[in-house]
Amino acid sequence: MNPVLDGIAPSLIRALNARKQPGDIDLGLGEPTLRPDPRYFDAAAAWVREHGCPYTVNAGFADLRAAIAAYHAIPDRGAENVCVTVGSEEAIYLALKAVLDPARDEVLIVEPCYLAYPKLCALEGIRHRTVAMDGDDGFRPDAARVLDALRPDTRMLILNSPANPTGRVWPEAELRALADGLAARPGPPVYVLSDEVYRELYFSAEAPVSIGALWPHSLVACSLSKSNAMTGLRLGWLVGGRAEIAAAVKVHQLVNTAASTFSQVVARAVFADPANLGEHRAHYAARLRLLGTALAENGLRTTPIEGAFYCMVRLPDAWAADSLGAAEALLTRAHVVATPGLAFGGSGEGWLRLSWVAEPDALAEGVRRIARFLAEPRG
Amino acid sequence: MNPVLDGIAPSLIRALNARKQPGDIDLGLGEPTLRPDPRYFDAAAAWVREHGCPYTVNAGFADLRAAIAAYHAIPDRGAENVCVTVGSEEAIYLALKAVLDPARDEVLIVEPCYLAYPKLCALEGIRHRTVAMDGDDGFRPDAARVLDALRPDTRMLILNSPANPTGRVWPEAELRALADGLAARPGPPVYVLSDEVYRELYFSAEAPVSIGALWPHSLVACSLSKSNAMTGLRLGWLVGGRAEIAAAVKVHQLVNTAASTFSQVVARAVFADPANLGEHRAHYAARLRLLGTALAENGLRTTPIEGAFYCMVRLPDAWAADSLGAAEALLTRAHVVATPGLAFGGSGEGWLRLSWVAEPDALAEGVRRIARFLAEPRG
Repeated sequence: MNPVLDGIAPSLIRALNARKQPGDIDLGLGEPTLRPDPRYFDAAAAWVREHGCPYTVNAGFADLRAAIAAYHAIPDRGAENVCVTVGSEEAIYLALKAVLDPARDEVLIVEPCYLAYPKLCALEGIRHRTVAMDGDDGFRPDAARVLDALRPDTRMLILNSPANPTGRVWPEAELRALADGLAARPGPPVYVLSDEVYRELYFSAEAPVSIGALWPHSLVACSLSKSNAMTGLRLGWLVGGRAEIAAAVKVHQLVNTAASTFSQVVARAVFADPANLGEHRAHYAARLRLLGTALAENGLRTTPIEGAFYCMVRLPDAWAADSLGAAEALLTRAHVVATPGLAFGGSGEGWLRLSWVAEPDALAEGVRRIARFLAEPRG
Repeated sequence: MNPVLDGIAPSLIRALNARKQPGDIDLGLGEPTLRPDPRYFDAAAAWVREHGCPYTVNAGFADLRAAIAAYHAIPDRGAENVCVTVGSEEAIYLALKAVLDPARDEVLIVEPCYLAYPKLCALEGIRHRTVAMDGDDGFRPDAARVLDALRPDTRMLILNSPANPTGRVWPEAELRALADGLAARPGPPVYVLSDEVYRELYFSAEAPVSIGALWPHSLVACSLSKSNAMTGLRLGWLVGGRAEIAAAVKVHQLVNTAASTFSQVVARAVFADPANLGEHRAHYAARLRLLGTALAENGLRTTPIEGAFYCMVRLPDAWAADSLGAAEALLTRAHVVATPGLAFGGSGEGWLRLSWVAEPDALAEGVRRIARFLAEPRG
């Protein structure tokens, strides 16, 4: 067996989900409960009836790649700057695998984070460290903290905005400070791998700015999974410089040939009008208002919710070093699934992540039970 | 950039295909020209309307995994012995990545072969060698030759039956000799990675035997791409021991989460009756009879065609060291695409691979032009 696999821990989230019973309230979900709009699938089914289901070229349909480049509105990016991937998960894998030299390069990951980032580094034998945002400051994105943590051999920085698990969004000023700091650094440029899988789920008047528009060495990973409730479509993409994307396509071709043609035709139908990518935003905004009411009624405070469909709740001192125990107790005593903060790195310890995509009644009841649980002694 | 990518040559096949002009006869194709049966897609579209398009568990739908295990009829193999993958390409990648230790283990590849095998080894930093079957013997599968080529650190053997590019099928007696030879070897067992993506395209009365049924350390990669003309579906699988599949699922989860849910529902509809996997065999058998007539009329000889939809034609002495030049000249002078044997390793030099999935008139005309081309002086 490949010995790197021994060093990769199984997911805490999956272990907890396996203990869920019917009737439990699930605030641990990592995917939308909405259904996708069937018209995209109908369009793809009609296409297959006419054309069959042949391979596309490795990088994906040229027109889809061009539409994705236009959607991201990053200067000097066209079809050749896009590789269509098997979800944003593969986009992240390709970025790490294609552009880094495991013998020399180090990755710096902004925490708390989706733990696939460090696990993928481990799988590829790439050295990696994390830099934690400050829990006392609600995990506010902080460019100065990130820049301070860079070392001479750091060649990639991974951030996620809007962020899982914190719900925070990197504001433009912090991204500019980050880009300026990176530009001022001597030596080869540091890639920024920006996971923007929640980019359409923002709750400000204006769409968040992408680091892709500010830093030329950005690689942006994204997908239709969260924006359009299409997690099972496995359709994502990586946007970057031409040389970097050419290298990513070389890996992509070898590891799985191409993304599903059917999924690409669904994506073409979505991208026929890029406004379609925002079609579920109002739904989430409404659910967020319900969450706000439930939180206020129960006197519960969370990290500021700026995007995605998560937030974090601080555990009382008795649980501050045992978020896994807290999540287990919450499930056993109150029949609510929430995700231990430790599942997002050491900086998440002492917190629970709540996902607020559940149905309104379940969401309100879940918040009520969590508030009651947190007020109880640990026992 | 990752320095391993520099050592991976671009595909000769793609370079040649890029020079193809409209009207040229294409005997270079690597995918069926048939359309898939639309009823499987209709069933999947109906499922999505009812259920949406959520993730499946990483390894794929449990019932699909069980159906795949039953289809392969390998002793002691059930759902937990199957990982559903993004085509057989990902299945091959997962097998290499999951079960080998790149620091110690060597791979032995039976040649001529699909060059993704050595390229994937290079991508993963795994030492690899090839063992060539004998062109003078029509590239007949030969267990003794393979066993002779094993070294103490060889931990995986890759074979492909029915084979691309030769059209040969490993007969049961040779597979038994191979399994017996492996069983007699001291030291840790050698995995056999058996690429069976053409397993339904055989032209004998009985289905070929799989090494999976004879050697317990087999890993079988397969897909719906060739059997059901669903290359673009990107739906394959890996069958193996429980520990090996658990390791493969761990990699699979990290690199792309899961195969497309839609594609898995299509596959469920196909596997509802495993006879569906053979539904295109009669079509290929009929096309093979046409090919036989065209070959006889033009006095052209090929390797014995036992399976898949390829065969190899020996080049005359003038081209024996330049199959790439021959393929280029064939395209320029005779407007026929064929694949240089060199694209399948050094043992393929001096040969052209013909794919015989073209329409009848094009196939007959293509064979006529090739026969004429081979009779011409090199010029």
